[in-house]
Amino acid sequence: MERTYAIETTKKVGQKVTLFGWVNSRRDHGKLVFLDLRDRSGIVQVVAGGEAQDLRDEDVVKIEGKVWKRSPSTINPELSTGRVEVRAEKIEVLSRAEDLPIPVVGKGTETSLDKRLDWRFLDLRKPKNLLIFRVWTAMEDAFRQYWIKNGYLEIHSPKFMSVPSESGAELFEVEYFERKAYLAQSPQFYKQMAMAAGFERVFEVGPVFRANPSFTSRHDTEFTGYDAEISFIDSHQDVITELSKTIAYVLSVLKKEFGEEIKEVFKRELVVPRVPFPQVTMKEAKSILAQLKVPKEREWDLSPEEERRLCEYFKSKKGHEFVFVTEYPITVRPFYHMRLEGDPTLTKSLDLLWNGLEIVTGAQREHRYDILVSQTKEKGLNLEPIQFYLDFFKYGCPPHGGYGLGPSRMLMQLLGVKNVREVTYLYRGVNRLSP
Amino acid sequence: MERTYAIETTKKVGQKVTLFGWVNSRRDHGKLVFLDLRDRSGIVQVVAGGEAQDLRDEDVVKIEGKVWKRSPSTINPELSTGRVEVRAEKIEVLSRAEDLPIPVVGKGTETSLDKRLDWRFLDLRKPKNLLIFRVWTAMEDAFRQYWIKNGYLEIHSPKFMSVPSESGAELFEVEYFERKAYLAQSPQFYKQMAMAAGFERVFEVGPVFRANPSFTSRHDTEFTGYDAEISFIDSHQDVITELSKTIAYVLSVLKKEFGEEIKEVFKRELVVPRVPFPQVTMKEAKSILAQLKVPKEREWDLSPEEERRLCEYFKSKKGHEFVFVTEYPITVRPFYHMRLEGDPTLTKSLDLLWNGLEIVTGAQREHRYDILVSQTKEKGLNLEPIQFYLDFFKYGCPPHGGYGLGPSRMLMQLLGVKNVREVTYLYRGVNRLSP
Repeated sequence: MERTYAIETTKKVGQKVTLFGWVNSRRDHGKLVFLDLRDRSGIVQVVAGGEAQDLRDEDVVKIEGKVWKRSPSTINPELSTGRVEVRAEKIEVLSRAEDLPIPVVGKGTETSLDKRLDWRFLDLRKPKNLLIFRVWTAMEDAFRQYWIKNGYLEIHSPKFMSVPSESGAELFEVEYFERKAYLAQSPQFYKQMAMAAGFERVFEVGPVFRANPSFTSRHDTEFTGYDAEISFIDSHQDVITELSKTIAYVLSVLKKEFGEEIKEVFKRELVVPRVPFPQVTMKEAKSILAQLKVPKEREWDLSPEEERRLCEYFKSKKGHEFVFVTEYPITVRPFYHMRLEGDPTLTKSLDLLWNGLEIVTGAQREHRYDILVSQTKEKGLNLEPIQFYLDFFKYGCPPHGGYGLGPSRMLMQLLGVKNVREVTYLYRGVNRLSP
Repeated sequence: MERTYAIETTKKVGQKVTLFGWVNSRRDHGKLVFLDLRDRSGIVQVVAGGEAQDLRDEDVVKIEGKVWKRSPSTINPELSTGRVEVRAEKIEVLSRAEDLPIPVVGKGTETSLDKRLDWRFLDLRKPKNLLIFRVWTAMEDAFRQYWIKNGYLEIHSPKFMSVPSESGAELFEVEYFERKAYLAQSPQFYKQMAMAAGFERVFEVGPVFRANPSFTSRHDTEFTGYDAEISFIDSHQDVITELSKTIAYVLSVLKKEFGEEIKEVFKRELVVPRVPFPQVTMKEAKSILAQLKVPKEREWDLSPEEERRLCEYFKSKKGHEFVFVTEYPITVRPFYHMRLEGDPTLTKSLDLLWNGLEIVTGAQREHRYDILVSQTKEKGLNLEPIQFYLDFFKYGCPPHGGYGLGPSRMLMQLLGVKNVREVTYLYRGVNRLSP
């Protein structure tokens, strides 16, 4: 018989069903045993006889039975299936659970984060955590829908490189046969290669690796990156426009599909942002922050505190959760960012902040070979190891720009989750390589 | 003015247009200069005056002009835009091209593969190569459409591991702060973790790393893998059914979107396969191959020659390009494959061959802790390093199975391309880490 999901039982009163799932809890009442059966769709109550008395929490079972309406006095308003129950006719144990090292049901928040990560597969059984990855799936799908509809090609660029892609710092080294290779810190060079190859618009979804020794709630050594690059732009403003449209599209899809559930579970009301998003130059941002008397950590970059306060400012002034910060000085941007015509100490760059957190970095790239070479030298970089990259700009390369977006950071802001570990399937940090 | 793609000029006769693209070729006729302008959509002829005389092949230009019908005698039947031409009013050079190290137009096949890979970004400008990645984009999108519609969740599992995921061989080692990490050879352990976590159906698209020292046309050190895993199956036959439906869906989408173009450019007629696909056990396969007098290389595995001949056999007998080979002996399968009830020397495993090439490997996995532990010991493996994996099966884990599919191998068969390097955006092998 075809499988029925827990949530579907409400539509099958009077019918025989086959359920599969985990024993969420068991309550014995004399000869009757009440099970809460949990599957991916939700929880349904199952009424069984004595044969269910040896079932334990988290056992995996197959249950055949019939769906009955509950009598009005026994309806459970806390379950979406609370108006029905399944009276079991046959129970088959598919897999037994030993004593659990961490609780799956209920008291999850009392377990330390580190212990929950040790037992991540049990932690992920909690419906709230499952929801995070249902939303991730929908979010990634929505990004891709936008990209595909708008003519982007997908690339999978190599993660092995002969040289660093960003800088020599925070680089992982690999034993590569008789030599060394490095793990890509971003697909930057290779998505630009696609522009030189005439692909015109590309996106890539894949892991990026950063040997970052910090232990903050925002950092990890490996994370998923969304990258996009587009050709024939006039300036970084074209990147800003395109990215704003992309994000507005993604959030409109997510609000429709998950708005209610996110509100209920995460107490977060999704807002579909208006296009255009507000923007501010770094210089203006610093002047606003000075007026607000926010302590300044670095001259030309934003601290987490500054990012938060700047977003609060724009939320109250413009009613917008997003703000682009543009025109970062060349000192804090890589050699390949194009410089502003009017002021060559500034770059045609952008960061996108959402509710106090940077989720995107982007720029127009320098596509003019001679200027790129001189910017490379100015940064004190050696030309020889990156000559293969510089060559991309020697044989006809259109003006182009793009961005890198952190989906786990986006998900943190989407759900109001404070730690990147909670929205990562399996977190990797300095001290965490397992499970 | 909004950009017009080359292919769109045929619909804009009499209108002013702005084109962007590469100078594919230039022919001077007295004071008139004829340019073939190439963009992502195709090629269109541009007629210009003397100002175009210093344009060189592969210069990137912006051209404003007006679309005219060509006179009947000058129509070019080889171009899809051959009935029109654009008379240039303004030409702006966006990027100059130096002398090309390899030709982009025409004589591409005369350049050695190795030299083409050295200059991959120029090689990819050839419309035939661009088509490969347009098809890849559509293929991946079609797989995802199937997965998303059918309730799969997407995961991004870590590529850093504390232990090998498959075996100790062909493993890349990374300096990970004060210790060693290994690069994932597949997401195998972690997609199974999703089954233990109650995700029920998952897919992952991501890089896999194999320190494979071979130089064949089918091998690389890093490639993109498509992985899927599903719960509550009865046997590997459920994996076979699900995978067959997936592939039939993907090929039906691709035939519709790209059938004509693939036929024209790659001389390959796409066939949407009937479901169910034929299948044969390894034992039967070996007996068929013995009857066909195909030389046997290994007792219980198939050589490339055997794969080819087996597919030819099934194509002639059943008119089907696909064949599943099942029930591989335990000696050639990993410890976590479930064994056949009737014959514990055989596994509930499957490989899918397409027109002579293995494109998928899969199986039902052993989810019963005690049996898994005894199979691990039997293979002579140490339990301790993989205890975190074995733990997935201790606290209630549904019966499950899945597969890993090689999209580059699939694309080879889809287009009739013989070398995996041709369908890889940037190939990585023993001797190739650059560009």
